[in-house]
Amino acid sequence: MVRVGIIGATGYAGAELVRLLAPRDDVKLVWFGSRSYIGQPYASIYKGFFGRVLENCRDDSLEELAGEADVIFTATPQGFLSGALTEGILSKAKVIDLSADFRIKDVATYEKWYQLEHKTPQFLGEAVYGLPELTRPDIPGARLVANPGCYPTCTFLAIYPLLKEGLIDPDSIIVDAKSGVTGAGRGAKVANLFCEVNENVKAYGVATHRHTPEIEQQLSLVAGRPVTVNFTPHLIPMERGILVTAYATLGGRAGVGKYTQEDVKAVYEKYYGKEYFVRVLPGTDPPETRWVQGSNFVDVNAVVDARTGRVIMMGAMDNLVKGAAGQAIQNMNLMCGFEESKGLDGIPMGF
Amino acid sequence: MVRVGIIGATGYAGAELVRLLAPRDDVKLVWFGSRSYIGQPYASIYKGFFGRVLENCRDDSLEELAGEADVIFTATPQGFLSGALTEGILSKAKVIDLSADFRIKDVATYEKWYQLEHKTPQFLGEAVYGLPELTRPDIPGARLVANPGCYPTCTFLAIYPLLKEGLIDPDSIIVDAKSGVTGAGRGAKVANLFCEVNENVKAYGVATHRHTPEIEQQLSLVAGRPVTVNFTPHLIPMERGILVTAYATLGGRAGVGKYTQEDVKAVYEKYYGKEYFVRVLPGTDPPETRWVQGSNFVDVNAVVDARTGRVIMMGAMDNLVKGAAGQAIQNMNLMCGFEESKGLDGIPMGF
Amino acid sequence: MVRVGIIGATGYAGAELVRLLAPRDDVKLVWFGSRSYIGQPYASIYKGFFGRVLENCRDDSLEELAGEADVIFTATPQGFLSGALTEGILSKAKVIDLSADFRIKDVATYEKWYQLEHKTPQFLGEAVYGLPELTRPDIPGARLVANPGCYPTCTFLAIYPLLKEGLIDPDSIIVDAKSGVTGAGRGAKVANLFCEVNENVKAYGVATHRHTPEIEQQLSLVAGRPVTVNFTPHLIPMERGILVTAYATLGGRAGVGKYTQEDVKAVYEKYYGKEYFVRVLPGTDPPETRWVQGSNFVDVNAVVDARTGRVIMMGAMDNLVKGAAGQAIQNMNLMCGFEESKGLDGIPMGF
Amino acid sequence: MVRVGIIGATGYAGAELVRLLAPRDDVKLVWFGSRSYIGQPYASIYKGFFGRVLENCRDDSLEELAGEADVIFTATPQGFLSGALTEGILSKAKVIDLSADFRIKDVATYEKWYQLEHKTPQFLGEAVYGLPELTRPDIPGARLVANPGCYPTCTFLAIYPLLKEGLIDPDSIIVDAKSGVTGAGRGAKVANLFCEVNENVKAYGVATHRHTPEIEQQLSLVAGRPVTVNFTPHLIPMERGILVTAYATLGGRAGVGKYTQEDVKAVYEKYYGKEYFVRVLPGTDPPETRWVQGSNFVDVNAVVDARTGRVIMMGAMDNLVKGAAGQAIQNMNLMCGFEESKGLDGIPMGF
Repeated sequence: MVRVGIIGATGYAGAELVRLLAPRDDVKLVWFGSRSYIGQPYASIYKGFFGRVLENCRDDSLEELAGEADVIFTATPQGFLSGALTEGILSKAKVIDLSADFRIKDVATYEKWYQLEHKTPQFLGEAVYGLPELTRPDIPGARLVANPGCYPTCTFLAIYPLLKEGLIDPDSIIVDAKSGVTGAGRGAKVANLFCEVNENVKAYGVATHRHTPEIEQQLSLVAGRPVTVNFTPHLIPMERGILVTAYATLGGRAGVGKYTQEDVKAVYEKYYGKEYFVRVLPGTDPPETRWVQGSNFVDVNAVVDARTGRVIMMGAMDNLVKGAAGQAIQNMNLMCGFEESKGLDGIPMGF
Repeated sequence: MVRVGIIGATGYAGAELVRLLAPRDDVKLVWFGSRSYIGQPYASIYKGFFGRVLENCRDDSLEELAGEADVIFTATPQGFLSGALTEGILSKAKVIDLSADFRIKDVATYEKWYQLEHKTPQFLGEAVYGLPELTRPDIPGARLVANPGCYPTCTFLAIYPLLKEGLIDPDSIIVDAKSGVTGAGRGAKVANLFCEVNENVKAYGVATHRHTPEIEQQLSLVAGRPVTVNFTPHLIPMERGILVTAYATLGGRAGVGKYTQEDVKAVYEKYYGKEYFVRVLPGTDPPETRWVQGSNFVDVNAVVDARTGRVIMMGAMDNLVKGAAGQAIQNMNLMCGFEESKGLDGIPMGF
Repeated sequence: MVRVGIIGATGYAGAELVRLLAPRDDVKLVWFGSRSYIGQPYASIYKGFFGRVLENCRDDSLEELAGEADVIFTATPQGFLSGALTEGILSKAKVIDLSADFRIKDVATYEKWYQLEHKTPQFLGEAVYGLPELTRPDIPGARLVANPGCYPTCTFLAIYPLLKEGLIDPDSIIVDAKSGVTGAGRGAKVANLFCEVNENVKAYGVATHRHTPEIEQQLSLVAGRPVTVNFTPHLIPMERGILVTAYATLGGRAGVGKYTQEDVKAVYEKYYGKEYFVRVLPGTDPPETRWVQGSNFVDVNAVVDARTGRVIMMGAMDNLVKGAAGQAIQNMNLMCGFEESKGLDGIPMGF
Repeated sequence: MVRVGIIGATGYAGAELVRLLAPRDDVKLVWFGSRSYIGQPYASIYKGFFGRVLENCRDDSLEELAGEADVIFTATPQGFLSGALTEGILSKAKVIDLSADFRIKDVATYEKWYQLEHKTPQFLGEAVYGLPELTRPDIPGARLVANPGCYPTCTFLAIYPLLKEGLIDPDSIIVDAKSGVTGAGRGAKVANLFCEVNENVKAYGVATHRHTPEIEQQLSLVAGRPVTVNFTPHLIPMERGILVTAYATLGGRAGVGKYTQEDVKAVYEKYYGKEYFVRVLPGTDPPETRWVQGSNFVDVNAVVDARTGRVIMMGAMDNLVKGAAGQAIQNMNLMCGFEESKGLDGIPMGF
C-alpha cells in the first residue's frame, strides 16, 4: 500500500488526482493539502466525492507530509515547490511536481519566463522530466519528477516522431493550441467566469506564453540543436481538453516535399505502435478532444499538404489527465513498481 | 464470463453500456447491434473506443443473438422489443430492456401514451421493473427486466420515501424536470442541433410526456391508490444529467405543515442510509448534476418550506448511467450474481 | 436630448443599458459610474464598445451625477440607492433603480429578506413599481421608479391574467424558474466560473430566494388578498434568459377543472393582445429563451392539463433586457415622453 | 423603398438577413424563399420573428422573384445560383450571392474544389467580389455581387495590410481558423448535434477546405503573384464567431525580422483607420469573438514575435454578420445608394 499525499488537492488537477487515485486499493490517500479550505471536508468542496472521500483538508506543510507519505504530488502554483523542497523531504518521500519548477533545466530561462527566482536549483540536475513515452527508463529511479506541462505534453507527442526522424524542418514549427477552461485553474477571476468564456474564443499569451521554453527545450533535445517555435494558445468554451495543431515544412534533412502521407504515418507507427496511451488515428482522421475526455489517451495524426510542402500535425488530450494528473500517476506507477497503466485504463467519456 | 449482447449499441445509451462493460474482465461483449452501421467498426462511430473495442457492428437480430449471449440489452426505440420478443429468446438469454415496452403494466395505458400497439403483452406479467432500490428482491430471478426510464428513476427516488411514509399529499405532486440533451438521442433532428439547443431552455411535452404514466404507476404502487402528477420536462444546454425538482404539500396523513426539515431528512436516511447509489446530501445542499456526472449515483435532498406548507424534493442523476446504462448493469449484476455495484463504482467526473 | 447617467455601468445590466442607449440620438450618456474601474476607458472593460463608447469610467457619486443628468439609472447592489438617495437628488433628476431597494413596499419585509436596514423608507411611498404592462399610467409622472426584478417580471407576466380573472386558485401557485448566468452578476466568485456552471444544473436559494416577497407582493395586489408562493430558481449553463414554469390549480372562483385551453388563451389575449412586448404564442407552443434573446419581448403561453386540473403557465424573457436594462429604458421612455418602444424594437438574436 | 427577396431564407444566414433587414423602413422584404418550408409562416420556423414577420415562406423561383424584387439575396448551397442565373434575371434585379458560385474567377479551380460543374461561367467576368474594404469602388455599379466567404473575409482582412505593404513573406502564410457552429448550417446532421459538438474541438477539412482557393485568389491579387497558404479550420462549441490566427515570416521584401510591433500597427492603421467596420485593437489586445457578436465589426490585431521573426495576425468576426448577411447588406447599401453602414451599426451583444 503506497501512501500518497497531495499538496494543492483542491485545484482542478488536485481533484483529478483524487478522482483517479481514490478507487485504487493499492494506494492510500493520506493528505489532502489546501491553502484555502483547511479543516473542511474535502467532499464539501468537490461534492462528487460525497460518500467516497471522508477526510478533511489539511495544510500545505511539505515537511510534515513527507513523514506520512511515500509519494507526494504537488499540484501547486509555480514557485511553491522550488521554495520548499529540501534534501530531507526527498530522502523521505518521492515527489512528483505538477508545477513548472523543475521542468526547465536552465535557471535563467525559468526565471525569465516565469518571473520568479528559483530557490533550489541544486535539485534541477536530478529532476527527471516525466514524459514516459520519452524518458521512461529514467523514471523508476527518480526521487523528483517534473511532470510535464499540459501544452508541452500534447505538442511534443504530436511533433516528436517527425522531428526525431528528420522529416520536418526544425526552424519551421508553428504550434496553434486550443484549451478548455480547466487549464486556467479554479481561481476566482472575472476572465474565467462563465459569461466571459462562453460563446467566445480568443488567443492569449501571444508570443509570451510560459509553456514556450518547455516546448523548445524538449524539441531541442530531440533535434540535437536549438529549436525555436511559435506557440499560440487559445481558450475554448469547454471544460476539458487540449487540441494542438502544429505546422512544419516537410523535409528537414531530405529536401522539401519529399515525404508522403504514408511516410509520415509510418514514422508515427514506429514511435507509438507499442505505446498504450498514444493512439495514432486511422487515415487522416483528425483528433478530437471528446474522444479522449476523462482518459489518459493522447490521439495524434498528421496530414501532408503536398500543395504547400507542409505537414499538419495534430494531437488531442485531456489536459487534466494526460496533461496533469493522469501523467503524474503514470509516473507514480513507474516509480512505485506498479503497471504503468494501473488505474488509468478508463475509457473516454465524451460523445 | 458472462457473454453480453447489445441491440442498439450505437445510440448514446448503447455506447454508455459499452463504456461501462468493456473494461470488465467478468463480462465479454459479443454483439454490437446497430441498424445504421452494420459492418462498420464500432470504434469508427464512437472513436473514444479506438484501440479498446475492435469489433464491427452487427445487425439487430434478437433471435440469433440469443444463441450467442447470456444477457441481452435492448437499447432500442419503443416497440422494438415488444415486437420481437419470444419465449424462445427468453429461454436462452436474460433480457434487460432499456425501452418502455415492458415498464407499463397496463396495456391500454401503454398504447395510449406511446401510440403503439403492444405485440407481446403476454410477457408483461413476468417483466420485473428493474429499480433495485425498490424491487431488488425480484431482480435476481427475472428473465426479463424493464429498465426504468430516466425521468421516472430520478423522480421516483426523490419522492419515494416521503410518499411511502405518508408525509406528503399524493394529490399535490408536481414534478419539474430538467434534462441534458443526450436524453433526446442521437437521431439527426434539427431540434437537437447545437445551435438550436445551446443558449436556450424550454419545456417540452407539456402535460403529454410519455414518462408520465410510468411515474404515476410507480407512485401509485407506493401510495396504495391512484396518484396523478404534473410532469414537465425541460431541455437544458448540457450533455448529461437530469435534475428533478418536485413539489408536494406536507401532511398527507398527519395534517398540513406538521413535518419539519428534520422529519423529512430522517425519512430519507431511513430509506437510503444503506443504499450505495443514493446519496442523501447534507443539510439543505441542493443536488447538482455535475456531482453525479458519469457515475451511477443519484443525489437527493429536500427542503421544507414552512411558509407554504410544502416540501421541495430534489434529485440529480446522470441520465445515461443511473438513468439508463448504469442501472441496466446494476440489474445485470443482480441477475448474474455479481456484486451489485460491480463496474459502477467510478467517481463522478464533473466540476 | 436627455442626459443619462449610469451608476453601476460596469456590471452586466449596466453594460446592457449602454448597449441599448449608446446608439440613440435622443439620449446622451454622460456618466459611466463604476466602483472598480474609475478612470479606465469604458470600452477597455467591455471591448465590444471599442470605437463606439469613448468615455472613461467615473465614480459612483450620485449627488454629483444628479447635477449633470436628467435621468439616472442605478444598476447597483441592494442597499446602495436606499443609502444614498436624497430629496435633493430627486429634485434634480429622475431615478430608475434596478436594485430591489424600492420594490418592496413593506420595510419589514424588505429588511427581513434582504438582511439590510432600509435607510430611506420615506421614498417608498412615491416609488412607482415600473412594470409598464401593469402600472403604465403611474410611470410618466414618477420621480423614482423601482425597476422590477428579473424573476418577478417574468413570473408576474406569466401568471397575471389568469390570477386577475380568477381562473386559478391563488393558494396553489408554484413557480419553478430557470436563469442564465448573467443573472448572477459579474463578481469574481468560484461558483460562477465557467467550469463550475457548464454541464450543470442546480436549484439555489430554495425556499429563501429574495425575489419571493416581490413576486408575492405583486400577485397579492392582483388577487386582492395575500398570496404565498413557492419559488425555486435554477442556474442554467447559458448566458442570457429566464424561463418560468408556473403551476396552479384551475378554478379559483369557478370550481376545479372548469376552464379549458381556449378559456385560458382568451384571457391572455385579453390582457396582452395590445401589448407590444408581451407575445402570446400560438397554440400550446412553449416559450423558449432563444426566441427572445437580446430583445425586450416576453413570450408567454399556458397549457391546461385536464388530467390534473392544473394549468402550466410559462414565460421566457431575456433577463438583462426585459428583466433589467430594457424594462428600465421602457420606463425611461415613458418618463421622458418618448415612444414606449423607442430603441427597444430590436429583433431577438437567438436560433 | 427597396424591395428585397431572399432565396434560402430559412438557413441561418437567411434568418440573419431577415433579422437585420426587417426593422428597416427603407427596405421591404417581399419574398422568403425556402425549399423545405413552403407555405409555412416564416415566424413558425424562427419564432424570434413572431409578431414581427407575418409572411409565409415561398418557393425558390428566382425567375418569378426577379419580377417582384429590386435586390435578391441568394443564401443557397453552392451550385444553385450558377445553375439558375440568367441575363433576364440580372436585367430585372440586382443579385447578391452568399454562396461561392461567383467568387472564384477561375472555373477550373472552382470545379475542382467544389466538385461541381459551373453552369454559367459567362457571368463570372462581371461578378464583383463584394468585400467593400477592398473593392468598394466596384460595388455600386454591379448587377451581380459575389459575397465573400466567412473564413476568407476574416482571413483576408487580418493579413491584407501586411501583405500589401510587403512586410511579410507571401510564401510563409499559415492560417489557423476557429468557427462557431452556425457556420455548418442548419442541416440535420449527426455531426452537428449538440452532444457531438459540445465539449469538443476538432480540425476539419485539413488541407482540403473549399475556402482555401478563395483565400489564395484574393491574397494573390494583393501580392501580385501566386500565393499558396495552409488553411485549417476548427469547429468550436459556440454558435457565432470566427477567429483567425495567421502566421507569417516578417520581411518579404525587406529582410527577416526588420519590422517592429510599431511598424505593423502603423500599417494596420493606414489601411483601416477610416474603415468603420474594421477595428484595429489597442496595443497587443487579442481579438475575441464575443466583442463582435451580432455586429458587422471585424476586430484585428497583430503581434510581432522577434524571437522567431514571425508576426501573428488575428481577426475576429461574427460569421453570420460580417461573414455573411451583414456584409451582404453592406454591399446592398452600396448598390442601392444607402449609407454603407445603414442598419449595421448595432453594438455587439456579447460579454
